[in-house]
Amino acid sequence: MKLVILQEKLKEGIKIVEKISTKSLSLPILNNILIKTKKNFLNLVSTNLEIGINWWSLVKTEKEGEITVPCQIFSNFINLLPNKTVILEKKDSNLDIKCENYKTVLKGFKAEDFPIIPQITEGEYVLVNSQLFCQNLNQVVNIPISSTTKPEISGIYFEFQKDLIKIVATDSFRLGEKTFELKTPAVLSKEYSLILPQRTAKEIINIFSEKEGDIKIYFSSNQVLFELPMTETNHPQIQLISRLIDGEYPNYEAIIPKKYETQVIFQRDTLISQIKSASLFSGKINEIKLKVDSKNQKIEVFGQSQDIGEYCGSLTGNIKGKSVEVSFNHRFFLDGLLNIKSPEVVFEITNKEEPGVLKPTGDQNFIYVVMPIKAI
Amino acid sequence: MKLVILQEKLKEGIKIVEKISTKSLSLPILNNILIKTKKNFLNLVSTNLEIGINWWSLVKTEKEGEITVPCQIFSNFINLLPNKTVILEKKDSNLDIKCENYKTVLKGFKAEDFPIIPQITEGEYVLVNSQLFCQNLNQVVNIPISSTTKPEISGIYFEFQKDLIKIVATDSFRLGEKTFELKTPAVLSKEYSLILPQRTAKEIINIFSEKEGDIKIYFSSNQVLFELPMTETNHPQIQLISRLIDGEYPNYEAIIPKKYETQVIFQRDTLISQIKSASLFSGKINEIKLKVDSKNQKIEVFGQSQDIGEYCGSLTGNIKGKSVEVSFNHRFFLDGLLNIKSPEVVFEITNKEEPGVLKPTGDQNFIYVVMPIKAI
Repeated sequence: MKLVILQEKLKEGIKIVEKISTKSLSLPILNNILIKTKKNFLNLVSTNLEIGINWWSLVKTEKEGEITVPCQIFSNFINLLPNKTVILEKKDSNLDIKCENYKTVLKGFKAEDFPIIPQITEGEYVLVNSQLFCQNLNQVVNIPISSTTKPEISGIYFEFQKDLIKIVATDSFRLGEKTFELKTPAVLSKEYSLILPQRTAKEIINIFSEKEGDIKIYFSSNQVLFELPMTETNHPQIQLISRLIDGEYPNYEAIIPKKYETQVIFQRDTLISQIKSASLFSGKINEIKLKVDSKNQKIEVFGQSQDIGEYCGSLTGNIKGKSVEVSFNHRFFLDGLLNIKSPEVVFEITNKEEPGVLKPTGDQNFIYVVMPIKAI
Repeated sequence: MKLVILQEKLKEGIKIVEKISTKSLSLPILNNILIKTKKNFLNLVSTNLEIGINWWSLVKTEKEGEITVPCQIFSNFINLLPNKTVILEKKDSNLDIKCENYKTVLKGFKAEDFPIIPQITEGEYVLVNSQLFCQNLNQVVNIPISSTTKPEISGIYFEFQKDLIKIVATDSFRLGEKTFELKTPAVLSKEYSLILPQRTAKEIINIFSEKEGDIKIYFSSNQVLFELPMTETNHPQIQLISRLIDGEYPNYEAIIPKKYETQVIFQRDTLISQIKSASLFSGKINEIKLKVDSKNQKIEVFGQSQDIGEYCGSLTGNIKGKSVEVSFNHRFFLDGLLNIKSPEVVFEITNKEEPGVLKPTGDQNFIYVVMPIKAI
């Protein structure tokens, strides 16, 4: 194997694949990346056995072949080089790297020992704008928590319909649902749904959120593939393949309230700042209290802690319906607000026992449901 | 106690004093800050019993008095407020804070329980530009390591002469010495020397490095005081008082080489980049080798590790004297280079057993001595 590539290009590829190369003691080869040349392409590969990543670039290939090397030292070394031509050459079981006055021999391992990354590039797929997809995913990605008793809700639920995608996440205390329309309706013979591990969702955001163009999402029964083509050819540039979480996602729609007794429209930033202030004085269960005063069109925010002291702040809002007092976990309430980007936020509540709903004004595509707590 | 102050001003003061308020379990009052009003001044005070910090600001005092409150919650709360008028008022043993729609009651403690910060504002002092002093101190501040057997070298040594200050630090593997002239020669009746704890030196850099104006340094037998006056009056704005390290600083001048066999002038950035590359391949004792080839006016940099592989890079330099091969701990060598700001660096060496010297070109005021190691 011998190839010539610009340092900056190689660095870009390593940055993408290195994220999932893990410090695995039981299977040290997972700390490596696989370097392959075939025709005019360099292919870098990494895997943690749950997720596999492929990255390709057009390069000057002088000799086809493959080798694997420890990811971290390879990455650190390439990052230190100037942005000049880098020559990678397999010599015996080692990798020679040359660039200007920098010259190194890196101990390598046999490519045959590297795990095979499964492929699914046949069958049905949907096409979504890469940045838009990541922005939407980002609104719910941090909600799940890992759960061994209910592994389904430790992932992110996707529903692919003809012309829209629904993304749902919950940790059973709050739930976020994002719906977005596909510009090019997919020609799917049926609806698909899947539960993506949270780790995979985070890697997708890391990798694709700044990439231009559309990604293809391919389905299979226990895996999913996200593929971004090169801009100059239709050859894939990045592929991320991940296993899925087995099981059935709970019937989450049942817990989204269909009606409300009180509706408040807040200034988002003012409310965020009040919640943060009150949160400093919240007790062990992170509770803060909202007192919606319909008569005076005023909301008060309370926090109280035996050890520290107490807080009371107020803000105005456009209030319809009954006055109500309700307590929330400030972290969960704040998370919802922070994932709404509109300057005004709608808050709907039935009573202090039922979940509240936060959503942006003038946008039905994001809904955040949060359970109240009994406190103060 | 009651006073009125702008949020931004109060935040600035808290930022200065909060750095040393510690999480002390044995003496919880050290987690507090003391808030005092006297005449037109607000005074914030914190201490960790080694260092004490005072900060003053001109404010509208409505009632004199004092109280102490937990630093962290006070700081977090004030930081969240908008930049508007803040009213602080002692009510019983609590502190009321009001600002626009934000209102809180913070549990306080008796001011009498707060440790007394010693004072030395009489006697001799020197006057130094605050930013320049911090820049100079910064060149050696990270060298010492804490040592129980030789506590003297875990601090920074200062020598105050009539018209100059010397700052020295060592960890017995390397040594940095910075000399700088005082613009206004001090009228000291004698020379002073002291050993400042490293922690204090770091706090001084944190606090004073971005302040304009001159700081006064006052001496006493076991303490030192750094004082910055307000710009509008001569009243102190910040005072940092610290205990000193007891003992006699070693005769460090004896280990600074007085002659050399080989002198090399390098491009600083090129050498830094070569050392970093070689360091990736260094072994357990962090060794890298420099091979100075006087005949070909070339320097080669080597790193070699049984597990990872090997590195060889080269650069050119202006070499006078004999060829030599010498190994260094890459961290220590790099630290010296990074603290030299000139584009070219002078490196002087006698042989592979004697310490090497790094210094900026055209500047005799900084010298960095580094011990070689026997390796490769």
